[in-house]
Amino acid sequence: MKTYGVIMAGGGGTRFWPLSTKAEPKQFLNLSGRDILVNETIDRQRGLMDRKDIFIVTNESQAELMAARTAGRVEKDHILAEPAARNTAACIGYAAMEILKKYGDGVMCIFAADAYIRDEKEYTRVMREAVRAAEETDALVTVGIRPTFPSTGYGYIRSVEEPGKPWRRVEEFVEKPDLETAKAYVEAGRYSWNSGMFIWRASTILRYFAELLPDVYACLEQIGKALGTPGERQVIREVYPRIPKISVDYGIMERAKGVLMLEGDFGWSDVGSWDTLDAVRRRDREGNISSGDTLLLDAKNCVIYGGEKLIAAIGVEDLVIVEGKSAILVCPVSQAQRVREAVETLEREGRIERL
Amino acid sequence: MKTYGVIMAGGGGTRFWPLSTKAEPKQFLNLSGRDILVNETIDRQRGLMDRKDIFIVTNESQAELMAARTAGRVEKDHILAEPAARNTAACIGYAAMEILKKYGDGVMCIFAADAYIRDEKEYTRVMREAVRAAEETDALVTVGIRPTFPSTGYGYIRSVEEPGKPWRRVEEFVEKPDLETAKAYVEAGRYSWNSGMFIWRASTILRYFAELLPDVYACLEQIGKALGTPGERQVIREVYPRIPKISVDYGIMERAKGVLMLEGDFGWSDVGSWDTLDAVRRRDREGNISSGDTLLLDAKNCVIYGGEKLIAAIGVEDLVIVEGKSAILVCPVSQAQRVREAVETLEREGRIERL
Repeated sequence: MKTYGVIMAGGGGTRFWPLSTKAEPKQFLNLSGRDILVNETIDRQRGLMDRKDIFIVTNESQAELMAARTAGRVEKDHILAEPAARNTAACIGYAAMEILKKYGDGVMCIFAADAYIRDEKEYTRVMREAVRAAEETDALVTVGIRPTFPSTGYGYIRSVEEPGKPWRRVEEFVEKPDLETAKAYVEAGRYSWNSGMFIWRASTILRYFAELLPDVYACLEQIGKALGTPGERQVIREVYPRIPKISVDYGIMERAKGVLMLEGDFGWSDVGSWDTLDAVRRRDREGNISSGDTLLLDAKNCVIYGGEKLIAAIGVEDLVIVEGKSAILVCPVSQAQRVREAVETLEREGRIERL
Repeated sequence: MKTYGVIMAGGGGTRFWPLSTKAEPKQFLNLSGRDILVNETIDRQRGLMDRKDIFIVTNESQAELMAARTAGRVEKDHILAEPAARNTAACIGYAAMEILKKYGDGVMCIFAADAYIRDEKEYTRVMREAVRAAEETDALVTVGIRPTFPSTGYGYIRSVEEPGKPWRRVEEFVEKPDLETAKAYVEAGRYSWNSGMFIWRASTILRYFAELLPDVYACLEQIGKALGTPGERQVIREVYPRIPKISVDYGIMERAKGVLMLEGDFGWSDVGSWDTLDAVRRRDREGNISSGDTLLLDAKNCVIYGGEKLIAAIGVEDLVIVEGKSAILVCPVSQAQRVREAVETLEREGRIERL
């Protein structure tokens, strides 16, 4: 059975503002100094599937840019353009329908465009197990991440070993916990982070859509009928914006029976904000992560991303300093989450030229 | 007797890097939000002399820019171009010779291009007294500033009252003191800050040059002979770079007898670095001084000068954040003096495109 890759790259990416902007969201950032995030995600699949079997689902407004940035890696007609952001159920359903109708059933490996993975070899091994599980059992399969600290930023999956099998059986998906609960989860040892990686057959997930999300499925069916016809884009533009907004986690994973999980321990990180770059970059001897043209005099434990200008940081500690195309950010590392506030303020004040 | 203004504007201006650069030194900065420093200095003289009697001495490399920036205020041929920086004695001697030879003797009021004065009315009153003193007595006159705090950044002048006269008699010029000494000076009450403002007749200062700095005077005489002839610029280019490098303070003021001083208390500040902008700008309620497009979320007691980009400062305190044309500076206000280190490092490393 064929293995497909589906990269979800619809994010607005304000958490890395001002480097990420509406025009250049996070998936197009080169945070690691090697390549942009989406291309690193594509290249990471080399042990799992053929490049020509990778699809990217993204906003229609970013589809051209995505095609340009991934040219030579991903087929242009494998970039699926969403006319509106309708959350992950719509996104995955659309990809499943496209694959089933145009390319034939197969195992879809679904992941976000913007995670980092340190140990690619182990990642490949675990994902192959997951693909095999999906093929063998026709179940919904996910990859949970063995927690390295009591994170309050991720959802968790409680699972139980299945004797004689490489996979575990999912008992419950749980929401992002508070710190006390997160500590208890990590100690209990039966909880993994929900990484948002899913592995299943296109035909299987569509069956679950029909059963658990019939309203979404009705829209997907309309789209499915139009796929490959001259009216395809027209129908997608009409129907897609009406798909109920619901996440695949909430709509399907939390409600489906018999979900399987492979646990992965391969240095996964969703690199969600300026304070989580350790997964991506080495610190210098003074604890700084820096990129671009910088001049650091007694700067310690800072995150500094320069752009066209030199950034001179003198005598500062624990600061994020970032130069974007139209804005400069300075904030303590511990307040990196407040970038969202800045973005919201600018939106409210209509200063869109800074976003 | 005619009153002339002589503005010394030869500074390299690295202390306001990266806003000030080699190409745009401090005198061209608009720190106050009203006008560039040199124009504010020119306009401040309105109660003292005619604009057409103001001269500016500056580097030859900046003369064109100076003429452009002061156009409409200062006559183009009143911009005196130094082929090399030879310290203040050369600068003042050249201006005195130019005035005496081309425009006739008169009282020269000499000041730097880059000081701020809060109370222009009081400034005008004190300067008029100083001009009168120079006319009446033919002495060297300076204006000392009544200290508002024990500064270690200025030299001091010890003086004694002269009964029945508006001026005081200078006893001694003293170097920049350490903090203990500065405190003692301020308590003693007989010490004023040396502001570098001088008032004297062109003919008088040239007489002092002849007596106290004969080597400098010999060069000035050669230049004086050439002034107004077709070979003028040629001679200046040959002779000027050979003038001994010495300050007027060290070469003349500290050695001359009978120097008079008017004490001024008009909110003078030399605005020497990013931590001394209170003389120039009001702080907001959170204690920030900001200019340009900024977004301040819980920023306190910061100095923020934006350029073309938005500066978003979140949760930071006591920081200087400045965007220049080719560099961005972030440092604690208390370490503003270290800008010099950054500039020196860039010079040493040959990164002149950042200066």
